[in-house]
Amino acid sequence: MTKRDFIGMEEWSPQEVDRLLDLAARVKAGGVAGGLERKVLAMVFLDPSLRTRSSFETAMFLHGGHALVLEPGKGSWTLETEPGVVMDGTGVEHLIDAARVLGRYADALAVRSFPKGPDWNVERDDRIIRNFAKYCDKPVINLESVRRHPCQGLADALTLKEKLGNPAGKKFVLQWAWHPKALPTAVPASAALAAAHLGMDITIAHPPGYDLDPADMKAIQSLAVLRGGSVAVSQNRAAALRGADAVYVKSWGAVSRFGRPDEERELRAPHRDWRMTDPGTSLVMHCLPVRRNVEIDDAVLDGPYSAVYDQAENRLHAQRALLLTLIGKSA
Amino acid sequence: MTKRDFIGMEEWSPQEVDRLLDLAARVKAGGVAGGLERKVLAMVFLDPSLRTRSSFETAMFLHGGHALVLEPGKGSWTLETEPGVVMDGTGVEHLIDAARVLGRYADALAVRSFPKGPDWNVERDDRIIRNFAKYCDKPVINLESVRRHPCQGLADALTLKEKLGNPAGKKFVLQWAWHPKALPTAVPASAALAAAHLGMDITIAHPPGYDLDPADMKAIQSLAVLRGGSVAVSQNRAAALRGADAVYVKSWGAVSRFGRPDEERELRAPHRDWRMTDPGTSLVMHCLPVRRNVEIDDAVLDGPYSAVYDQAENRLHAQRALLLTLIGKSA
Amino acid sequence: MTKRDFIGMEEWSPQEVDRLLDLAARVKAGGVAGGLERKVLAMVFLDPSLRTRSSFETAMFLHGGHALVLEPGKGSWTLETEPGVVMDGTGVEHLIDAARVLGRYADALAVRSFPKGPDWNVERDDRIIRNFAKYCDKPVINLESVRRHPCQGLADALTLKEKLGNPAGKKFVLQWAWHPKALPTAVPASAALAAAHLGMDITIAHPPGYDLDPADMKAIQSLAVLRGGSVAVSQNRAAALRGADAVYVKSWGAVSRFGRPDEERELRAPHRDWRMTDPGTSLVMHCLPVRRNVEIDDAVLDGPYSAVYDQAENRLHAQRALLLTLIGKSA
Repeated sequence: MTKRDFIGMEEWSPQEVDRLLDLAARVKAGGVAGGLERKVLAMVFLDPSLRTRSSFETAMFLHGGHALVLEPGKGSWTLETEPGVVMDGTGVEHLIDAARVLGRYADALAVRSFPKGPDWNVERDDRIIRNFAKYCDKPVINLESVRRHPCQGLADALTLKEKLGNPAGKKFVLQWAWHPKALPTAVPASAALAAAHLGMDITIAHPPGYDLDPADMKAIQSLAVLRGGSVAVSQNRAAALRGADAVYVKSWGAVSRFGRPDEERELRAPHRDWRMTDPGTSLVMHCLPVRRNVEIDDAVLDGPYSAVYDQAENRLHAQRALLLTLIGKSA
Repeated sequence: MTKRDFIGMEEWSPQEVDRLLDLAARVKAGGVAGGLERKVLAMVFLDPSLRTRSSFETAMFLHGGHALVLEPGKGSWTLETEPGVVMDGTGVEHLIDAARVLGRYADALAVRSFPKGPDWNVERDDRIIRNFAKYCDKPVINLESVRRHPCQGLADALTLKEKLGNPAGKKFVLQWAWHPKALPTAVPASAALAAAHLGMDITIAHPPGYDLDPADMKAIQSLAVLRGGSVAVSQNRAAALRGADAVYVKSWGAVSRFGRPDEERELRAPHRDWRMTDPGTSLVMHCLPVRRNVEIDDAVLDGPYSAVYDQAENRLHAQRALLLTLIGKSA
Repeated sequence: MTKRDFIGMEEWSPQEVDRLLDLAARVKAGGVAGGLERKVLAMVFLDPSLRTRSSFETAMFLHGGHALVLEPGKGSWTLETEPGVVMDGTGVEHLIDAARVLGRYADALAVRSFPKGPDWNVERDDRIIRNFAKYCDKPVINLESVRRHPCQGLADALTLKEKLGNPAGKKFVLQWAWHPKALPTAVPASAALAAAHLGMDITIAHPPGYDLDPADMKAIQSLAVLRGGSVAVSQNRAAALRGADAVYVKSWGAVSRFGRPDEERELRAPHRDWRMTDPGTSLVMHCLPVRRNVEIDDAVLDGPYSAVYDQAENRLHAQRALLLTLIGKSA
């Protein structure tokens, strides 16, 4: 029996993802009770979280299970993440051992680990989440890694389906926004994959130099084509937004200047006007946390076209479906 | 349907508070099972806690529910608390968004936020707890804000009823104590409100310059009068303690020197003798944590008149009653 | 009625420990459901943890109970641990009060507190865990103190029984290993006590100057003799390992240089070759976290003779048995 991980949405078949989304909708409607009795989810947070932690902990509880929350370097031991090293430095426990041990206590393991840099060619292999999956013999769930945030992607897809009816063929714009820091690309890649899964016509709009990693672009493109949609890239914000059914506002750092924060800041500096001030009648999406009046204006977030709180709520329901699928009694 | 918050005891009618206290007594006696099945309480701690966290987490569990514990700036994102700002600084997530999102996952939200200074005229508006209540569409419970600690007040009232029989007309002394730090006034105000609710004759004893905020004094006075009690203020510790049925020992900083720690320390310095060394036969109360042999002597805390551990235990029962009332199955 | 604490394995009678181990085996085999409904375990971590926290939290949950996790100095108040002091320093809450209050909320209290030095003659009294036990009127469980880690010892004994059949008379080697830091002696003492309980022939192998505390040696010796085993000490690693049925690899600091880290490092420096590279056919044990390729090589940890993940898993089952025994419905 092979165990199942959930690291990137595109690693599951579209049919499996559709089943997850259908189950999420049924769960949200109140149609599924229990299913996780005596089940334990171990969550390892190498980076902070509000929604992810709260929604997973709630999801486990609502179905009779329990979520353990561990924070290496804070309440639990500092992790060494590189296999094969001589551990005479600061890492107290090896990821390999944490993964194996937690697999003995829990029914699934969930991990958050943002890029720690400085070399994108190393980071892009997403080794921490991949090694947790390799060394843990229970299902591993990605709570946002360097490359993917698939639970956010599931919630985004569920939200798009709720708000747009059939999203296929509708226009989805992933719009870069200015932000005081160079953020990871896991969310924009995962949001575009979610729209691709839904067969939407995707436009990715960003200033020069902010292209997503080529492998991510290829994954988005392949899935879009497979599902009857399309992908375009634009450096013209106004033109890109025209006719959008949904605009996903999100900041990310320039992959080409990864690990060189001064150069990245310089590249980013002229683009403070990449900010959502007026969505017209398009749905406005964001994964949260959002920098108010920097990425999106108060009036937009608090206005009638904002889907951001529904997205956040849908994290809960999408994850209930995911957990029931991976470790539920009938799974 | 309006949602109900619990921010200050005096914001609920005396009849409602009486019902809470009656339910707390029944809960403590073991007469209430379940009632919070599938209910989630999200707790946001902007400051440390032992009793509050443990007693709420236990309360939820004992009735079938679950408490989420979040610590912004530690495990979860640093919060920006001021509405309307351009978030290009250090705050990663806005309180508005945290309040709304947690309201999607949880059935109630509980928040601890001490004064962060330096301006009392700003702090006294208690904006953080008020804004959580404003932006969250689920009941918000105050776990100690700048101005109030109403769960402590409930536990204090329950303890006074248990220990004094009918407390009405008995003498309650709120006695200031020296402490190495200038502490908030939420607990003394809430303890006096609890005694006022019970119709006690209250004496507030403190050195010159340690008057509570005038609005707090007014609230205490109004409630005392309404409930048949009275309020006096004294700067003579020995005289104030004479004939006391219960002495609530508590340190607090001078509101008049709020945000000017050097001046406050100077005002406080001559009063190390404001320390409870011998209670006679009066009940001795304290909210804990207590500075042993600074606020109250070991012999008093560990002696026969100490009610401090019963107060701490009653946090649990008072909060079980509060939670059952706010979000219980039959609520 | 006297309450029962679990601070050192040797403080329970061998018959009681045997009953715990038998129950642990039955629990592991799936033969015990429930038993901790509405029970709360309060866990106080003065030091980090992965296994201990996860396995206790899981143990409580699997039998219907709940574990509270508190971290003084982080989420909860900084503790003053010395009775009788005038608390005008940095400690906000006294251990006495924390112990009493948690005893009001929880059915048992569990505490982790490593040595904080610098004087072994003070530390060896293990005052923090002893004072928690003294001031809390509920059972206190040691999650690793200065002198003992009895839950690890239980798990080790369970593992030895599983792997060796009847361990009595078999050879158990406790082998010191080099490590970049001077670690506590609680685990080696507790592992040797576990082997002594099982009636094994124990060899403790370490470089000159790394003798365990004489009182620990005496406790190990007494228990070994009582149970039909023996204890030898060796400074010859190769000779000690010859014919071993099980080798427990573990680093510890020199008690004789406790609190003088520079001198201790100098004593330790020449012994980097005390490292497990090839166990032959003996079982290899370690409590984890392990410094890979420093204490034990990757090939050994990941090889066929490694028992370390079973030991870690057995923490869960041993603790389920302990909790059921101390606070279970039928206890």
